[in-house]
Amino acid sequence: MKTRAAVAWKAGQPLSIETLDLAGPRVGEVLIEVKATGICHTDYYTLSGADPEGIFPAVLGHEGAGVVVDVGPGVTTVRKDDHVIPLYTPECRQCKFCLSRKTNLCQLIRGTQGKGLMPDASSRFSLDGKPVFHYMGTSTFSNYIVVPEIAVAKVRPDAPFDKICYIGCGVTTGVGAVIFTARMEAGATVAVFGLGGIGLNVIQAAKMVGADKIIGIDINPGREAMARQFGMTHFINPKAVDNVVDAIVQLTDGGADYSFECVGNTQLMRQALECTHKGWGRSIIIGVAEAGAEISTRPFQLVTGRKWEGSAFGGARGRTDVPKIVDWYMEGKLRIDELITHRLKLEDINEGFDLMKRGESIRSVVMY
Amino acid sequence: MKTRAAVAWKAGQPLSIETLDLAGPRVGEVLIEVKATGICHTDYYTLSGADPEGIFPAVLGHEGAGVVVDVGPGVTTVRKDDHVIPLYTPECRQCKFCLSRKTNLCQLIRGTQGKGLMPDASSRFSLDGKPVFHYMGTSTFSNYIVVPEIAVAKVRPDAPFDKICYIGCGVTTGVGAVIFTARMEAGATVAVFGLGGIGLNVIQAAKMVGADKIIGIDINPGREAMARQFGMTHFINPKAVDNVVDAIVQLTDGGADYSFECVGNTQLMRQALECTHKGWGRSIIIGVAEAGAEISTRPFQLVTGRKWEGSAFGGARGRTDVPKIVDWYMEGKLRIDELITHRLKLEDINEGFDLMKRGESIRSVVMY
Repeated sequence: MKTRAAVAWKAGQPLSIETLDLAGPRVGEVLIEVKATGICHTDYYTLSGADPEGIFPAVLGHEGAGVVVDVGPGVTTVRKDDHVIPLYTPECRQCKFCLSRKTNLCQLIRGTQGKGLMPDASSRFSLDGKPVFHYMGTSTFSNYIVVPEIAVAKVRPDAPFDKICYIGCGVTTGVGAVIFTARMEAGATVAVFGLGGIGLNVIQAAKMVGADKIIGIDINPGREAMARQFGMTHFINPKAVDNVVDAIVQLTDGGADYSFECVGNTQLMRQALECTHKGWGRSIIIGVAEAGAEISTRPFQLVTGRKWEGSAFGGARGRTDVPKIVDWYMEGKLRIDELITHRLKLEDINEGFDLMKRGESIRSVVMY
Repeated sequence: MKTRAAVAWKAGQPLSIETLDLAGPRVGEVLIEVKATGICHTDYYTLSGADPEGIFPAVLGHEGAGVVVDVGPGVTTVRKDDHVIPLYTPECRQCKFCLSRKTNLCQLIRGTQGKGLMPDASSRFSLDGKPVFHYMGTSTFSNYIVVPEIAVAKVRPDAPFDKICYIGCGVTTGVGAVIFTARMEAGATVAVFGLGGIGLNVIQAAKMVGADKIIGIDINPGREAMARQFGMTHFINPKAVDNVVDAIVQLTDGGADYSFECVGNTQLMRQALECTHKGWGRSIIIGVAEAGAEISTRPFQLVTGRKWEGSAFGGARGRTDVPKIVDWYMEGKLRIDELITHRLKLEDINEGFDLMKRGESIRSVVMY
């Protein structure tokens, strides 16, 4: 069949709208009509050429929602007309990682996924007979995609695609870090470094589970108002205080119970660790640092009881936990609508990247 | 009353045996006859002058065992003739830290303890009317000591003082890191960096809880034999392999479930983190690094599921957990006898420091 898609022919160039050939689903694969997709910083990062693992030509995009159109042989967990979110972190439920019960980082198809290929080491996309690569196992910048069954989360059919697509990455990354990685308890004090989309999702999850103090830290005072709407109780502009760590320690009677780094800046990661409470503070890194950057601290910070951790895809198991987050949104426990700041047609997808580059969007969503 | 004690008059000098005046126990205090004390690297560190918080003149020593001789007003949890281990990490059971249930780092008397004083901000030791400071709230290099009731662990009376004194610091630090900090489960794979006294205690605790693979790492091949006796299953000499991290990853099918740094070397701390398993590896820093040294890694190590933590006094609550460790020793679950390599009289205590400096002892014990 044919599919309209935004193709990244090479790094550093705008995406090009093409009509690609899409081979149908093979054994254990699912054909999905993507209804909406967010544009995430990770797409931007790969398109820029900074991603050392970037492969071209490829169909980018990893934050989508849609409907199952067809399934290949052996597929049992989803069927035609199911509403789904494709998963860049699959959940096979049978690899060492899934069975450990300790991580969401399913590794069953990681090797081929990292090479832009389906698990059988081939691509379903092509143009004029030449393969175009998949991206993060999802490629949601295509109207139709084929993904492995283990990378499909079935969600309730009444949830709007143009909102829940954001659960495919950003919402889950922030909300999940609080709920699945930190397992935060009611009454906690929380420091959130960076009030972009991830930070706002950390904040609303902390509010959802009953945190007492939710301190947001950002050098952009323009972000304060919305963060307060999402549950932030205190705002610190690092430019307005002598020492961010001291300011947080004072606000929290000794340090935050939890902190989250949502920027990808290794200096902020250090501050995030050191502002947590002696004895039990846990600092969770969400942001992706530039290649080669390192975090540092004195080991005394850890010996006196702080823990340095990280979170990928919010610690969420894709097929098990993503549907829960959709439910929480539909039940009004989480807000997404206000976070979708721009809606675009596929033809205008490059505008979404421009908005992101200029810092003018929280989330742009492409509607098919 | 009078007490014989080894006094550190100033940094860098040998200890001097003196007969000091010791004031009796005040409200909430306990007078203990110390029967035996270990000599620990922390005493050596402070005596050397490298400890920026070292105070002189002081009675060093923090790894003792003895008998209660008298108690001050209001003391209810111990009485005359009780066998006890003095605690440099007290357990008040009422401060924010104790009540958190998340840490053993009781902070109730930390301020005065750090100044070499009892909780009422005075010293019980003096010579010719001039005060001599306490050390770590214990000062076990004195035959008699006064300590706060919250810093006294009552233990079974049939346990030999010359062995269980080591539980006052080294044994608990290593064993506790496995059992109270890591809460290690049976079947775990473990990497232990450094096969000195702490490392051997980590190893025997890992064996006690049923770890599958216990890998010891040390540049001194002479330490292999005893480590195997204590439960080590694999030995790696870093000088004999190209890359220690790779060697551990290969031995453990992807990385150790837990690692422990028992040396105090920040490069080893990094290796200890990076040799743990993606998704769930936990690396626990026990060793004390030199002042100003920092640990570093790429944040990707944490984002992919490794956790960097620390342990002080093995995460053990002094009054609650130290008696359990004494029981485990008496029940034959833990070995201490082989770790006591030298016995000395108080008069010969400087020989113990010399042995330590030359690396010829695991633990020297002073018998009163």
